[in-house]
Amino acid sequence: MAQDLFFSDAARAKLEPYLPSSHASNTIDKTFLTLTFATSLDSALSLAPGTRTRLSGPESKAMTHYLRSRHDAICVGVGTVIADDPALNCRIGPSSASGPDGLTYPHQPRPIIIDPHGRWDFTDDNKVFQVCRSGTGKGPYVITSTAVQHSIDKALLLGQYGGKYISIPTNKQGRFQWEDILYALSLEGLGSVMVEGGGNVINSLLDASSQHLVDSVIVTIAPTWLGQGGVVVSPDRVTENGVAIPVARLSDVSWHPFGEDVVMCGRL
Amino acid sequence: MAQDLFFSDAARAKLEPYLPSSHASNTIDKTFLTLTFATSLDSALSLAPGTRTRLSGPESKAMTHYLRSRHDAICVGVGTVIADDPALNCRIGPSSASGPDGLTYPHQPRPIIIDPHGRWDFTDDNKVFQVCRSGTGKGPYVITSTAVQHSIDKALLLGQYGGKYISIPTNKQGRFQWEDILYALSLEGLGSVMVEGGGNVINSLLDASSQHLVDSVIVTIAPTWLGQGGVVVSPDRVTENGVAIPVARLSDVSWHPFGEDVVMCGRL
Repeated sequence: MAQDLFFSDAARAKLEPYLPSSHASNTIDKTFLTLTFATSLDSALSLAPGTRTRLSGPESKAMTHYLRSRHDAICVGVGTVIADDPALNCRIGPSSASGPDGLTYPHQPRPIIIDPHGRWDFTDDNKVFQVCRSGTGKGPYVITSTAVQHSIDKALLLGQYGGKYISIPTNKQGRFQWEDILYALSLEGLGSVMVEGGGNVINSLLDASSQHLVDSVIVTIAPTWLGQGGVVVSPDRVTENGVAIPVARLSDVSWHPFGEDVVMCGRL
Repeated sequence: MAQDLFFSDAARAKLEPYLPSSHASNTIDKTFLTLTFATSLDSALSLAPGTRTRLSGPESKAMTHYLRSRHDAICVGVGTVIADDPALNCRIGPSSASGPDGLTYPHQPRPIIIDPHGRWDFTDDNKVFQVCRSGTGKGPYVITSTAVQHSIDKALLLGQYGGKYISIPTNKQGRFQWEDILYALSLEGLGSVMVEGGGNVINSLLDASSQHLVDSVIVTIAPTWLGQGGVVVSPDRVTENGVAIPVARLSDVSWHPFGEDVVMCGRL
């Protein structure tokens, strides 16, 4: 098991205004959505599709895991899952509070994998199931198009870990609407979700048609330029009378230096 | 004349470690080069080539003018000059020190315009000459290729304001080498230069072949996404054994929130 990560109380306090207030309740109006990712100065998530690029320092990694402990669910695209085989769990250390052994272990978020065409080919060996077996993670909910037929074996494997397939319709372009995804999450009693990547998922949320669904944005920027050709966060352009205008501007912005990186918090 | 800008002593102190130590001396080993610009979160300088996009707040504008007061020269590409008709002077207010009227007026930097093909078509009406006439700016040095023939009228107009053409060779692609530009500046006794834009000039300096010439980097980031198709800062990619690697990573990094923006200082 990976070593526990430490995230200070002072750092936690800075993020608090941007986080959902509590975990799942039975009555959810709308699932709280936090969009979070790390980029280079040239807004790249990685050097190339399917590669993982170490961008940010250990403080940022601890922050990501703290954020995971504060959301009912964490959501990634299938491309990221195939490329990275991520554990999608929370590895923040226990806090010294009132658990059975004098410690409180972190909440584990439900992994949500956006996989419209059912591309994810998994086995018992995938990290997301390993952490389930060690009691430090939850089985994923895999969101696929209603047109996708699932193998019984895979559905059983997911079910063994408390995961499942969730089928929702796609549009003519074979893509989900974010409203439908969030509605499906709310039906599962998931009151908050943290969307982590990859590029397609992030850009589709920042799109003019979806950005109203985003409650908080937490972006880490590392002081490096990856150069042309990386996987870039930049939404489709928006025009007004034929002239380009900014796609989104954040409000209630705060910036927090974390080691060599900076973390920006804001609302859309 | 534009209103004086205010930049606090506290903010000045934060930038100090990244600035050249003094103005021109007669013996210059190498002109100190500060690279500075403002981008969106998606690393765009503007929404489209030839358009000016208001990105950063008033604090950042004041910072730019303070930085101008701390350099012997400021350097921009001809595209920016044609698009914006900038004054290229320093509009920071006088400090309450020991000038003749009890105030010290800011040093005015020498404008340097990178114009390999002699594209800049100017008259007495350009802002850069207006500020010369009002005593708040210097005549520009326009750097052109040795292959460019200058009109006598234009050379005289520049000379009237203390400016001039400087001819240096271009390479086969019709581009200058940054080493040659800096050597030309050092011959003029200019001990420090602040490079401000536009996109081509910035990306060429961040290129693997030139970045060793950059002493300091000061980047303002505004909490907005401009979207695909803007003028983006992102240098050409670098590969090692066929695999992309980061083009540049900054050291001695510090981050300073300025209003809604953040200012990153670092060294290359």
